[in-house]
Amino acid sequence: MDDYSFAMRTQGLKRSFIREILKVTEEPDVISFAGGLPNPTLFPVKEFSAAAARVLAAEGERVLQYSTTEGFPPLRELIAKRYRERKGLQVDASQILITNGSQQGLDLLGKIFIDPGDSVLLERPAYLGAIQAFALYEPEFRTVPLEEDGPDLDRMEEELGDGKKSPKLFYAVPNFQNPSGISYSREKRAAVARLLKGSGAVTVEDDPYGELRFIGEELPTLAGMLGERAVLLGSFSKIVAPGIRLGWICAPAQVMERLVTAKQGSDLHSNYFSQRVLYQYLSDNDLDAHIRRIRAAYGAQRDAMVKMLELHCPPEVSWTRPEGGMFLWLTLPGRLDAMELFDRAIKERVAFVPGAPFYVDGGGSTTLRLNFSNSDLARIETGIIRLSKAIKELLAGA
Amino acid sequence: MDDYSFAMRTQGLKRSFIREILKVTEEPDVISFAGGLPNPTLFPVKEFSAAAARVLAAEGERVLQYSTTEGFPPLRELIAKRYRERKGLQVDASQILITNGSQQGLDLLGKIFIDPGDSVLLERPAYLGAIQAFALYEPEFRTVPLEEDGPDLDRMEEELGDGKKSPKLFYAVPNFQNPSGISYSREKRAAVARLLKGSGAVTVEDDPYGELRFIGEELPTLAGMLGERAVLLGSFSKIVAPGIRLGWICAPAQVMERLVTAKQGSDLHSNYFSQRVLYQYLSDNDLDAHIRRIRAAYGAQRDAMVKMLELHCPPEVSWTRPEGGMFLWLTLPGRLDAMELFDRAIKERVAFVPGAPFYVDGGGSTTLRLNFSNSDLARIETGIIRLSKAIKELLAGA
Repeated sequence: MDDYSFAMRTQGLKRSFIREILKVTEEPDVISFAGGLPNPTLFPVKEFSAAAARVLAAEGERVLQYSTTEGFPPLRELIAKRYRERKGLQVDASQILITNGSQQGLDLLGKIFIDPGDSVLLERPAYLGAIQAFALYEPEFRTVPLEEDGPDLDRMEEELGDGKKSPKLFYAVPNFQNPSGISYSREKRAAVARLLKGSGAVTVEDDPYGELRFIGEELPTLAGMLGERAVLLGSFSKIVAPGIRLGWICAPAQVMERLVTAKQGSDLHSNYFSQRVLYQYLSDNDLDAHIRRIRAAYGAQRDAMVKMLELHCPPEVSWTRPEGGMFLWLTLPGRLDAMELFDRAIKERVAFVPGAPFYVDGGGSTTLRLNFSNSDLARIETGIIRLSKAIKELLAGA
Repeated sequence: MDDYSFAMRTQGLKRSFIREILKVTEEPDVISFAGGLPNPTLFPVKEFSAAAARVLAAEGERVLQYSTTEGFPPLRELIAKRYRERKGLQVDASQILITNGSQQGLDLLGKIFIDPGDSVLLERPAYLGAIQAFALYEPEFRTVPLEEDGPDLDRMEEELGDGKKSPKLFYAVPNFQNPSGISYSREKRAAVARLLKGSGAVTVEDDPYGELRFIGEELPTLAGMLGERAVLLGSFSKIVAPGIRLGWICAPAQVMERLVTAKQGSDLHSNYFSQRVLYQYLSDNDLDAHIRRIRAAYGAQRDAMVKMLELHCPPEVSWTRPEGGMFLWLTLPGRLDAMELFDRAIKERVAFVPGAPFYVDGGGSTTLRLNFSNSDLARIETGIIRLSKAIKELLAGA
C-alpha cells in the first residue's frame, strides 16, 4: 500500500524486466547474451578523448554553458546531410532534434501524440523500451505479428483498414529489429507504406541499428515513402557510444514545433558538452571507416553464433539469421518455456532474455533473445555450447 | 490548423517566452539581464578537462558504455554526504537519482504525481521551468503570493486548510527564488512546514541556488522539517556548469521507486560520461573553494546592481535585495507596463525579462526580472544606467 497518491499512469508501471535481469547476469563467470550492449572494445576512446580536449581548450566556457533546446546546429546539419546523401531523404537541419538517446525520442513522441486510450500499433514482438516509454501515456496497444520478412500484411490491413479507426501511431523497427533481428524486405516495406498511407496513423520508424548491416543491400526507409506522415529516430549509441546518451528525432516541421516545446519542459536541452565533443570527434575522424570496423566485428560474431547453434543446438529449435544489428531470436519447441530454460541456463553460467516481455498481449513464452554484439568469439562458442546443453536437458526432462 | 492529431496535453503548450526573448537579446551591443545563465568565466574549464582526460584514460570503455538508471553510485553518495554533513539531513545514496539537470526532476515528478485536474500549488510569481514541466500533465494551478520573507501565510492556510482538498504538490524555491530573488525567513520556513504537515500535499523543494548565499546565515530546508512528505531537487548547473545537464532528486524510497521506473522510460539513464567526468572533477578539486569564488563574484555583481539602481532608478520603482542567487526583482509604479518598458529598453540596448509569464493566474504586468550573475561590473553599471533612462522616459510619457 502506497503512502502517496501517485498519478494513474504509474499504476501499471513495471521496472524493465531486462534491466532487472541484467543484475542477475553480471557475475563474471556468467556468459551473458542477455544485454543489449554494443561492444566497448570498439568504442573510439582515444579519438573521443582527443576531441574532448580540443573543444574544452578552444571553447571551454561556451561548451559548458546552457544551450538551445534543438541541439548544436552543425551536429543537426551533419545528421541531415547523411540522410540526404545516403538515404535520399529531403531533410534539413531544422527537422533534427537532438535527444538523450532515441529512448527520449520515444518519450517525447508519446508525450505529444498519445492521449489515454489512444491506439498504438506495435510489432509483435516489440522493442521493450518503446513499450515502456509509450505505456506512461496510457495508450491501448495493438500488435501486428512479424513474419521472417516483416509484418503480416493481412493483419496489418485489418488494423489499418477502412472499417476500423486508425491507430494514432505505428511503431516500427524495420532494420534488424530488437528483439527479433528481423528486417523488412524491400517488398514488405512498399506494401506496409501503401497500407499506412491510406490510414491516419503516424509512423514512428526507429532505426538504431540500420548502419550495422553485414549481409545484403541497404533498403529504403519507410519515412522516405511516407513523407510528412512519418518521423525517424536515430542514435549514436551503436555507431559511436551509448554513455553519451545522444540520439535524434527527424520530423516534419509541425511535429518538430511540438517536440521542441515538450523537450524544453522535459530537460531544457541535451548535454551540450557531449554534443560538442561528439561533433568534434565526427569532424576529426572517418565515421564510415569506424562503422565498417563495427560491422566486420559484429558480422563475425553473428556468424560464430549461427554456426555454433547449427553445430550444437537440437533440431527442434529454430532461430533467425539477422542481416545486421545485435540480436538473434530463438524459438523453442512448443512444450518448452523460456523462463524455465533461463533458470537452467543460469546454472550452466549462460544468460539470455526470455521473449515474453516483448509481447504486450501475452504469448512468446517459447521465445528468447540472444545478443551477439557484446561477446567475443571464444565466449560465443562456449556460451552456445552451454545454452545448447541447457536446452537438451530441458528437452529430455519435458 | 494542425494536420496531426496531437495529444490534448499539448494544446495549451507555449514555447518558453524567456527562451524566445533570449534570441532577441543576443545581439552583441545589447546588455542582457534577461537570461538565467551562470557566469562562464567561473567555469572550471581546465580542471574539468583534466578530469575528462583522466577518466577516459583510466576507464574509457566503461565510461562510454550504458549504465544504471539511478546514476553513478559514488556521485550519488557524494550528494547524500553533503546533505548529511551540511544540512543535517538523514539521507543515503539510495535516495538520490541523477537527472538531466533539475528540469528533468520536475518533469519526472509531474509524471509520477499529476493526474489531469490535480491541484498544484505554486508560489506567485513562480519559476517558469516548473510551470512548463508540470503543465504537460494538465494540473489545475493554484498560487500563494510571495511576500518579502516568503509565502503569505494566511493564503497558504486557506490553500492547505481543512475546509479544502489539499493540493497534490506544493512547489517551492525557498532560497533566492527564480524569478523574485526572495528567500523564506527562518520563521516562515517553520510556519510553512507546520501548515504543510497538516495537509496531504507533497512538497517539491527546488534548491538550485542554495549554495550561492552572499549575505546572512544558512537556513534549514523545508525537506528536513517535512521528512517523507518532501522531495528535494538539486543541480550542478550553478555550482559547476550547466552544459553537462546534471542535477538530482532526493526522495523517500517509495517515491524513488516510481521515479526510477519513469526515468527508465524517459531516457534509460543520464549521460554517464559526464557523470564520471564530474565525479572525477569533484574528487580532484575543492568544490567548496570553487563555490566561495562564485559567491564572491556574484555578491559583488549583486552589490553593483543594487548600488546602481539606488543611484539612477526613479524613486517610484522598488526592487528586492537578494541574499544570494542570480536574480533581482523590480516593481514599476502601477501605471507602467513591463512589456512596454521592454520595447523601450531594447532601443536603449538593454534587456530583461518581463514578469507576467511567471504569474500563471494573470497579473505581474508591472514586474520584471534582472539577472546579475552573467554580467561583469562594467556592463552592470552601463546596463542599469540605460534601463533607468528607459524607465524615466516611460514615466515621463505615462
